[in-house]
Amino acid sequence: MKKNKAFLDRAEALKPRLIVTQKELSGSGRVLKAGDEELLDFGDHYTGYVTVEFESVGRHPDAPLHFSIIFYESTEEFKEKPERYHGWISPAWIQEERVHLDLLPCAWRFPRRYAFRYIKIKILAVSSNFSVRVKRVGLEAVSSADDSKRIPFRGKAEDERLDAVSVRTLHECMQEVFEDGPKRDRRLWLGDLRLQALANYETYRDFDLVRRCLYLFAGDTFEDGRVANNVFIHPEPEIDEQYMFDYSLFFISTLWDYYEASGDRETLRELEPTAMRQFELSKACFDRKHVLDMKKAGPVFVDWHRLLDKQASAQAIYIYALQDLVKLEQALGSDTRELEREIAAKTEAAKKYLYDARKKLFISGAFRQVSQHTQIWMVLAGVVKDAEARELLERMESAAFAAKPATPYMVHHYIDALIRCGEKQKAYEKMKAYWGAMLDRGADTFYETFDPARPDASPYGGKIIHSFCHAWSCTPAYFLRKYYSEG
Amino acid sequence: MKKNKAFLDRAEALKPRLIVTQKELSGSGRVLKAGDEELLDFGDHYTGYVTVEFESVGRHPDAPLHFSIIFYESTEEFKEKPERYHGWISPAWIQEERVHLDLLPCAWRFPRRYAFRYIKIKILAVSSNFSVRVKRVGLEAVSSADDSKRIPFRGKAEDERLDAVSVRTLHECMQEVFEDGPKRDRRLWLGDLRLQALANYETYRDFDLVRRCLYLFAGDTFEDGRVANNVFIHPEPEIDEQYMFDYSLFFISTLWDYYEASGDRETLRELEPTAMRQFELSKACFDRKHVLDMKKAGPVFVDWHRLLDKQASAQAIYIYALQDLVKLEQALGSDTRELEREIAAKTEAAKKYLYDARKKLFISGAFRQVSQHTQIWMVLAGVVKDAEARELLERMESAAFAAKPATPYMVHHYIDALIRCGEKQKAYEKMKAYWGAMLDRGADTFYETFDPARPDASPYGGKIIHSFCHAWSCTPAYFLRKYYSEG
Repeated sequence: MKKNKAFLDRAEALKPRLIVTQKELSGSGRVLKAGDEELLDFGDHYTGYVTVEFESVGRHPDAPLHFSIIFYESTEEFKEKPERYHGWISPAWIQEERVHLDLLPCAWRFPRRYAFRYIKIKILAVSSNFSVRVKRVGLEAVSSADDSKRIPFRGKAEDERLDAVSVRTLHECMQEVFEDGPKRDRRLWLGDLRLQALANYETYRDFDLVRRCLYLFAGDTFEDGRVANNVFIHPEPEIDEQYMFDYSLFFISTLWDYYEASGDRETLRELEPTAMRQFELSKACFDRKHVLDMKKAGPVFVDWHRLLDKQASAQAIYIYALQDLVKLEQALGSDTRELEREIAAKTEAAKKYLYDARKKLFISGAFRQVSQHTQIWMVLAGVVKDAEARELLERMESAAFAAKPATPYMVHHYIDALIRCGEKQKAYEKMKAYWGAMLDRGADTFYETFDPARPDASPYGGKIIHSFCHAWSCTPAYFLRKYYSEG
Repeated sequence: MKKNKAFLDRAEALKPRLIVTQKELSGSGRVLKAGDEELLDFGDHYTGYVTVEFESVGRHPDAPLHFSIIFYESTEEFKEKPERYHGWISPAWIQEERVHLDLLPCAWRFPRRYAFRYIKIKILAVSSNFSVRVKRVGLEAVSSADDSKRIPFRGKAEDERLDAVSVRTLHECMQEVFEDGPKRDRRLWLGDLRLQALANYETYRDFDLVRRCLYLFAGDTFEDGRVANNVFIHPEPEIDEQYMFDYSLFFISTLWDYYEASGDRETLRELEPTAMRQFELSKACFDRKHVLDMKKAGPVFVDWHRLLDKQASAQAIYIYALQDLVKLEQALGSDTRELEREIAAKTEAAKKYLYDARKKLFISGAFRQVSQHTQIWMVLAGVVKDAEARELLERMESAAFAAKPATPYMVHHYIDALIRCGEKQKAYEKMKAYWGAMLDRGADTFYETFDPARPDASPYGGKIIHSFCHAWSCTPAYFLRKYYSEG
């Protein structure tokens, strides 16, 4: 690992003050014995610290109170039993606690932060001599997003809810860094950051928080200068020992987007070498035909999709990022001819080797897999443009067996691709249909993963482990405000 | 309830400073994944506050650590599954916690006090990227018993362990008050206090702690002046809304024992009205034949024995307490002729109406139940004495179907009865056999309940709920030092 202390110090200096909002609910007044439950609804998604106050009913308590508490982000979790979850994501993320209180009345403050709208308290044990009542539940909600500075929504009234829920999602993920989700992983991921930052420029315009995150990624890299895909903040900033080919390249795009929104030339200049380094490292991963060698590229994310072949998407993402690098270098007055030649070579190779002329679709990998992902990224990379791109996306939709986006993150890129090739109305309808289906299910924030065709399915083996407030799902606010706003 | 503020203030002023002893164990160094357990052995019974320190192994932790911890007083609990306990005592007493730690390394201090020798930590969840190690477990053991002031044991070497385990039991129960058990109920009970105080006079000689407890009982009584059977100390001293006929009377004996040991005449004078009031209230519970009317007497404890008829024992306990009241009044120079007449009348009635001349055993209740309890208490009350008493206890032992002591509390009274009627050697053997059987099972402290004939049975439906360090079981130290000491 290579640490840049000056960069990490800059990140530390940019650490935001969290804004604390106090909320309080009264208990129902119901007298609770062992086995009884009480459900509390805070009315919206919150991230913060909870205090539960119990009082006893009946004789003086002659045994401890033992209770469990579970924090739900969404009604989608209500039917789940935590003990039945056996998926591959650690069950340690399930927001359930068990507590003994030796004395009543007692206001118990949980030391951990939770993300939730609903709280279910279950009495596990009292004694025959007494019962309890939940007197109140206090909440210190935290976020670094300042709602007083948020740009008002000027779009259509019918889009207000879509915008508001996107904004709430972003708000909840804005903490000491841009987190991917306040329930899980509570961590700074580059793929999420890129999209969050775009939504942020249209809403809170908190440039410092983006800048802080860029310095965190640039301040701790792999030995060769490769940017990690995520960073742990506590006990002190430290990158996770993993990278993804696409996420490293997105450092370039995220830096460019930041400069475009903020005009902060100093940061652009200081972080340009980090961006350039991602290009240099990725450049070495191509074969002589200018096609990406996946053995050299290493892990690529693209989407949560087990069977997806990612080669063609990764090739396109490389071209996409290089286009941002060209703009970035031009803004600094550098010569970009080499970069442009590189883009041209990789674009040519994509058309020549990653395109099936019979199917009229881009293909990926040795098994020539057809996926929507590949077509979407080819459009975003400008490998095909305008009418050609529109027709490609049209064909893609009717292509049987083509792998489809599995996450709002990938759907974002589909919407973006439609807009880029002039299908603004279709993009709007697709966006309304996808995120609208979550709204129809009562979402207060947008989900990490959602398939409208199978809304009850869980790719993780249980909805109790899902993140129902996930950064990469907040971009309707970006699209609505940037492309569909009347103001 | 009738509060005497002056008495409660006196009790508050006598609140002891707890002596804190620091202990520390290193973890085994084993790398733990989900499902793995680590057992730590502190080598003796302790009561106090625990800090567990974990460190991570492998990659940076990318999920919380979820673990459970269970505190065992005794190996007798090892086989028990907390979730399988469904007895009548609240499962809230089971010393098991579940905790999530978001950051590692972490030293987590549990806010509650536990009573234990063994700690079992079980990893419930980590992630696939990391494991954990228990680095150390710290303990702040607390007790108000000052071992530096304890009178050394001067008995036989072979009795040292019996004395030491008794003393440890007492030590662990000496906290802000004399507790019945540091695991359960952690509370001041008059029946336990009386025996603890006796053991205390031979060991720690902490008169202030007994005095404090006497003032707590006298400072908060029922409206008519009846002393409660137990007192809650937190959040502020308050009696439990229940009394037992025998426990109320034991206030007299406990006060007399205290005076006899301490010579504290001021306390005797101040608390004499409370003692006298217990006599007055109990006196009204007899019928015209001077036999106790159980409807008037209300609840009586005597022993944990569901089928025991308690009438005759209660009659004897009344006589027993009145004998202490006579000594108490004489010490204060009062006329005791009325009291002595009362003792004589009740003794006569016991012999006349509660004795089966055919069986040559005392009987109790409408169904003329024969129990060991009744014979024991008749001897302790002096209803029969010397050779007559020795023969009664002899007959009692061979009497079929006679209910037997169920607790060390009742066995204590049997030993005491044997000593009183001159069977000192037999008393010694019985004591060695009963408490010795617990020592043979590896006891570090003596149990609340123990039946040598069925050592694996649990009257509560599970040993996980037992108190394995219980005040009323600490009296071998009293007997050994008072009756069998060479010094």
